[in-house]
Amino acid sequence: MASADDEDPLIGDLSEGAVLRAILARTAPAAHALLGPGDDAAVITTPSGAVVATADTLVHGPDFRTTWTTGYDLGWKAAAVNLADVAAMGATPTALLVSLAVPRGTRLSYVTQMADGLREACAALAPGCAVVGGDLTVSELMMVAVTALGDLGGRTAVTRAGARPGDVIALAGELGVAAAGLDLLFQRFRDGETPVAIDSTKLDAVEQHALDRQLRPHPPIGLAPAAADAGASAMMDVSDGLTLDAGRMAEASGAAIDFSGAALDALAFGGDRQRALAGGEDHGLLAAFPSDAVREHGLPAGFQAIGVVIEGREHGVLVDGTPVVHSGWDPYRDWDGVVSD
Amino acid sequence: MASADDEDPLIGDLSEGAVLRAILARTAPAAHALLGPGDDAAVITTPSGAVVATADTLVHGPDFRTTWTTGYDLGWKAAAVNLADVAAMGATPTALLVSLAVPRGTRLSYVTQMADGLREACAALAPGCAVVGGDLTVSELMMVAVTALGDLGGRTAVTRAGARPGDVIALAGELGVAAAGLDLLFQRFRDGETPVAIDSTKLDAVEQHALDRQLRPHPPIGLAPAAADAGASAMMDVSDGLTLDAGRMAEASGAAIDFSGAALDALAFGGDRQRALAGGEDHGLLAAFPSDAVREHGLPAGFQAIGVVIEGREHGVLVDGTPVVHSGWDPYRDWDGVVSD
Repeated sequence: MASADDEDPLIGDLSEGAVLRAILARTAPAAHALLGPGDDAAVITTPSGAVVATADTLVHGPDFRTTWTTGYDLGWKAAAVNLADVAAMGATPTALLVSLAVPRGTRLSYVTQMADGLREACAALAPGCAVVGGDLTVSELMMVAVTALGDLGGRTAVTRAGARPGDVIALAGELGVAAAGLDLLFQRFRDGETPVAIDSTKLDAVEQHALDRQLRPHPPIGLAPAAADAGASAMMDVSDGLTLDAGRMAEASGAAIDFSGAALDALAFGGDRQRALAGGEDHGLLAAFPSDAVREHGLPAGFQAIGVVIEGREHGVLVDGTPVVHSGWDPYRDWDGVVSD
Repeated sequence: MASADDEDPLIGDLSEGAVLRAILARTAPAAHALLGPGDDAAVITTPSGAVVATADTLVHGPDFRTTWTTGYDLGWKAAAVNLADVAAMGATPTALLVSLAVPRGTRLSYVTQMADGLREACAALAPGCAVVGGDLTVSELMMVAVTALGDLGGRTAVTRAGARPGDVIALAGELGVAAAGLDLLFQRFRDGETPVAIDSTKLDAVEQHALDRQLRPHPPIGLAPAAADAGASAMMDVSDGLTLDAGRMAEASGAAIDFSGAALDALAFGGDRQRALAGGEDHGLLAAFPSDAVREHGLPAGFQAIGVVIEGREHGVLVDGTPVVHSGWDPYRDWDGVVSD
């Protein structure tokens, strides 16, 4: 009679080929792939002749913990954060490459659920995009390095550097909700066994939403091309916190960004302005739009005005004219260095 | 007075931005990049409208050990193995994305030397290709995940699956030399301090060459487009050993591959046929060419005939008509699981 172990073997007891087959059985066909997984490399169509490419890694410890993060959630998040970076250029994601390092003691189901999460995040956030290749290796530490590719569809890439004084600063997506979810994890689920069963009965609906968004971010990928078409002068995704990321846009653009406190309070999850400014991982789209375009056409769907670009790089980021103390997530400064299994 | 520690700080004592600036100061401009590092994503030109993409990760332990591998060598190898996968499709490498996970106790110089190795491997093996983006994170374990992109220049991608009975099997590059270098490391330099000073006076010129090739592989990237143009019906890089990789080509092509023992002996490093068949990491290009094209035009420059494609997938890989016992490097099966610092 088959034991649970036979049904869900350890990665270390399987050949590389067996693990890959189990993963590839769960990847979806990529609409843009001329050639998918299985050869030395994949081939992806890029009709415009320009491919957008970005890479982001999730490491056990600073970026996720198997205590809290299921394989599905890890796959979802690894896809979402990379899709958001492609979208932030005004492009449509076309393909993911996934380099996966897993300890030998990992169950196969963790890895196949990760493949499910990757597939479903693509389907939900960037239809037509899928995993076209990658790499699998054993490691003492779990790590997922994703590269996302995208197509600009003939558009010019929208960088962080184009914001000009007078531009309207607008945001699509949520603000502070992922940070609220992280606070919940640390406050309520820190000291449990591995994995911690996150007991939903201990959470109200608002808390459950925050936890969902922390574990499975929903960046508004599909809004990005329209923002580029609407003339966005600068755009980026808010991954490390609004203050830190807006500061990067301001610095790159040689200007300052002045947020409206009232607009932030209205958008901030739970009305928590401080968390909205400092909390990372929402992966909303922060964009600057020339004011005359906004006057004429309004902001593109899904974007809400939260500030203006002003003169003077030295002012950095402000709220209602008052400089904000630099805050946000820097893994080199902020992570406590403790790896919790 | 500045101490050595001040001059070469630990990664954990620096901000992410400071480490990135030190790395980016050492990357070269990418000839194919419309937009390089510094934004959410890079933009790379792909005039043919098809981008080749591959990912491969080096993990401390199974893939390299800081005992033996300098930062420079790690960067070189991480570039070379990925460039070889792009070349194996018949494409020209255009860009690398590098996701780097480093322990806090790593010296900055290790990382900047890695950037040097990445840059110089690109310059030597695939001029015009360079690092265009990536990701940096702290980790308990050092790991480098590289994605390489390439352009087919209007060619159709050469897969592993096109070899037909009667085709000539040819190889460009070395055979067994990287494995010989690995044997030297295990035999002579296993028990030293961290890092082991590899004393070159203990090595003769042949041994030094083997060690160089293990640490800094030189795949013949530039020969690949010409092989595609010469009508290669299948191509791949030999990363896991000739028998294992040729078996993959044979399987994908629904045929068998019969090597000439004499040809292998002539090419094998040190005349060691067994190591030539089983040893990995040379990253030479294994290709099949239709026999009439070979008769008419000869093999493309740098390729030497080492066998023929024959009928019968069930025969797998043979030498002079005798099946070879399956051998090669499978990290899931072969790695001893010991992480040596």
